Amino acid sequence: MKRYEELAEEVAAMIATQLLLPGDKLPSVRQQHARRGVSPSTVFQAYYLLEARGMIVSRPRSGYYVAPQRAALAPEPDSSHPLEASTTVDVSDLVFEVLGAAGARDIVPFGSAFPSPHLFPMERLARAVSASMRRLDPWSTVTDLSLGNAELRRQIALRYQLDGVPVSSDDIVITNGALEALNLCLQAVTRPGDTVLIESPSFYACLQALERLELKAVEIATSPRDGVDLAALEELLQRHQPKACWLMTSFQNPLGSLMPPEKKRALVALLARHGVPLIEDDVYGELYFGKQRPGLTKSHDSAGLVMHCSSFSKTLAPGFRLGWAVAGRYARQVERLKLTTSLSAPIPLQMALADYLAQGGYDRHLRQLRLTLAAQQNTMLQAIAVHFPPGTRVTRPQGGYFVWVEMPASVDALALHRSALAAGISIAPGPIFSATRAFRHCVRLNYGHPWSPQLEEAIATLGRLAQAAA
Amino acid sequence: MKRYEELAEEVAAMIATQLLLPGDKLPSVRQQHARRGVSPSTVFQAYYLLEARGMIVSRPRSGYYVAPQRAALAPEPDSSHPLEASTTVDVSDLVFEVLGAAGARDIVPFGSAFPSPHLFPMERLARAVSASMRRLDPWSTVTDLSLGNAELRRQIALRYQLDGVPVSSDDIVITNGALEALNLCLQAVTRPGDTVLIESPSFYACLQALERLELKAVEIATSPRDGVDLAALEELLQRHQPKACWLMTSFQNPLGSLMPPEKKRALVALLARHGVPLIEDDVYGELYFGKQRPGLTKSHDSAGLVMHCSSFSKTLAPGFRLGWAVAGRYARQVERLKLTTSLSAPIPLQMALADYLAQGGYDRHLRQLRLTLAAQQNTMLQAIAVHFPPGTRVTRPQGGYFVWVEMPASVDALALHRSALAAGISIAPGPIFSATRAFRHCVRLNYGHPWSPQLEEAIATLGRLAQAAA
Repeated sequence: MKRYEELAEEVAAMIATQLLLPGDKLPSVRQQHARRGVSPSTVFQAYYLLEARGMIVSRPRSGYYVAPQRAALAPEPDSSHPLEASTTVDVSDLVFEVLGAAGARDIVPFGSAFPSPHLFPMERLARAVSASMRRLDPWSTVTDLSLGNAELRRQIALRYQLDGVPVSSDDIVITNGALEALNLCLQAVTRPGDTVLIESPSFYACLQALERLELKAVEIATSPRDGVDLAALEELLQRHQPKACWLMTSFQNPLGSLMPPEKKRALVALLARHGVPLIEDDVYGELYFGKQRPGLTKSHDSAGLVMHCSSFSKTLAPGFRLGWAVAGRYARQVERLKLTTSLSAPIPLQMALADYLAQGGYDRHLRQLRLTLAAQQNTMLQAIAVHFPPGTRVTRPQGGYFVWVEMPASVDALALHRSALAAGISIAPGPIFSATRAFRHCVRLNYGHPWSPQLEEAIATLGRLAQAAA
Repeated sequence: MKRYEELAEEVAAMIATQLLLPGDKLPSVRQQHARRGVSPSTVFQAYYLLEARGMIVSRPRSGYYVAPQRAALAPEPDSSHPLEASTTVDVSDLVFEVLGAAGARDIVPFGSAFPSPHLFPMERLARAVSASMRRLDPWSTVTDLSLGNAELRRQIALRYQLDGVPVSSDDIVITNGALEALNLCLQAVTRPGDTVLIESPSFYACLQALERLELKAVEIATSPRDGVDLAALEELLQRHQPKACWLMTSFQNPLGSLMPPEKKRALVALLARHGVPLIEDDVYGELYFGKQRPGLTKSHDSAGLVMHCSSFSKTLAPGFRLGWAVAGRYARQVERLKLTTSLSAPIPLQMALADYLAQGGYDRHLRQLRLTLAAQQNTMLQAIAVHFPPGTRVTRPQGGYFVWVEMPASVDALALHRSALAAGISIAPGPIFSATRAFRHCVRLNYGHPWSPQLEEAIATLGRLAQAAA
């Protein structure tokens, strides 16, 4: 633990034990420095961390104070209880209708799938791209047309190694975003008509991928806290003989659920007993609010059945469209599918990200991004607690930038989506996250945009619209 | 016609009518200038054009001379006569084996699918990318995640308009290279088990796309001069009820065949009568050696059945992986498939190419590239005529950078591929261009690399290896 983290924990403990009370002024930076010998920057970092957690607030030209008594947060939703039958998937029209409407720039982007681009280090990326173009070896535009730029794959492999997962450069196929990686993995292990197990609710792009490949979906009961129910999963494995299981075990989209380490181990073992590959969409894994990156299912994968997919689109450079797959025993199939569907990811951008990663700025950027997102989640949860109708439940994810809001049963999320849009606000209504168009009274809200009076007002508007419908 | 082209035609006519004989010295630049009032740069351009056509040669510090009597070029191959039955496709293993072996940088790249990257304006592209990153609006990394950058689509639409094809920005979907565009178009109009008509020989990536989507192939008799036989096509349309026809009507890969304008019109009409979509791979259309770009099948497409795919990978920026589809009545399906398989092409590179195109450097670059390729084809045809065994036939394409060499029937192209590779030379053996592994005695050779003594020696080596096998 770093010095500033220790200091933050100390102060947090004083607040938790009510040694410090709401409204109390915290020792100033100068005091902490003078009396404890802690450097000013360490104190600032500690206080910033506590502010991100919503435990303290700063008042301009006055200092830091213990946060006032907060509105009680809405309770968390229960696990889902999906149908146990398999379903053909037909959601794409609805998804496109909803997303198409939400693309405009002047809309409050609660329905967006991306965090604010202003949270990304665009200037440093621009310099990295310019530098890579200047020293671009023309031949590399031909020789790198394969698994991807060797240095980028090495940098990604190094990150796996740091997370305790033995992955080598050769195991990695660079793709056009995680979405292509996931689609290639799915295609590598299924044929039309096969059944795939998915979460409930599940990411709409997963549903669209199943629809495109004419696969059947079976939804697994999923807890907003710790992911799919393993007992339910085991039963479905026996009943449906699925060809794959597509999950997000860290900060699932849309629930934000995080599967604990032991459950991840049990999940991988269960799937291995049934010989079913796990397609893991792990694009949010780096956006954790806790002390360290959640463990990876891939780290338990002695059978080579875990196909781990991720990208830089949610954490660093959305417009670059660079992702990857580490596909275990299916690596060669995925590699070939990549070569025959789109040959290669763009060379100059791969070089630029390889350089950026080699220079070590990524982890510093991620630390800042996590703090920002954690603080914004706090603020949004507070705003929902104040403005949404009684009976509303909301998730409290430990990472990512989505909350899942379960409103009273009488609220129709699709109707809310339309009336919100008319008021200049996008939301992601529940039915786009389900093969059976369930979750009719749920919405996913994005808190990945710097908080502002406009966003606060938009939550109030959504709350009023939901109140009126409830 | 430009002044320098008129002058070149004049001189060409004097050579053709033997008014000028092999070995004759041409009027010097100074003479042309003094006596005809033609500017030195016009004379240089005219002579350069004639040199590119192989009609004249320059001798350092001496001037230009009518080219010496040349070795008689090898005759051209006949049309193919494929089986008329449909075939399941299973060529990927062979294709990957051949291509995998040929990727090394120190190999003579006659087997390569790309021209030399040194022929591309890398410095100007680098400046365009740097500039686009500097003024990258972070929001565009989210809002452009769809059909593609609006300005790039507009620039591409303008080029269609100049070619007389009414295409608007909204008709264009930007893809990760033409390969993705072609794959998406194919997927939009077929289901597993369907039959698709293709050329014979056909581009191996087309065969791999059919294999991946579990489609059956029927090969059409194809002339190295003017493409598929329309009578044969009509018969196959009736017999096989295909769901699509995948062709390259301008500078087909590997034959280099160019379908004349009237035949293109008849082709589109024939397919329209049968309601069969044409997937057109037109990545070489800009690399013509004649006076103007060959007409596009798309220009006759009143039924909206032509799905026109192209890219910048063969003409400007291979590593950028930027292509597009104009898919007629299937545009919305292709757009959706793009969104669900890989979401979007990378934003900064799209912006950079849009700028590059807007600044007008593309056509100048293309003019230079075409002259270079035409000259290199001449040189390679000469070298083949000198070094290959009697009975060899070679195509004389009017564009692109491939020749198709039909050797005596006793030469096994796969064996030649292996022995050539051992000698440090890659070639593309005939069987990778056929669903039935036909063309056992044919190879495709790439002349898109600046000629050198090393390349001349490599052709001599190939000729010796072929002689030994013949």
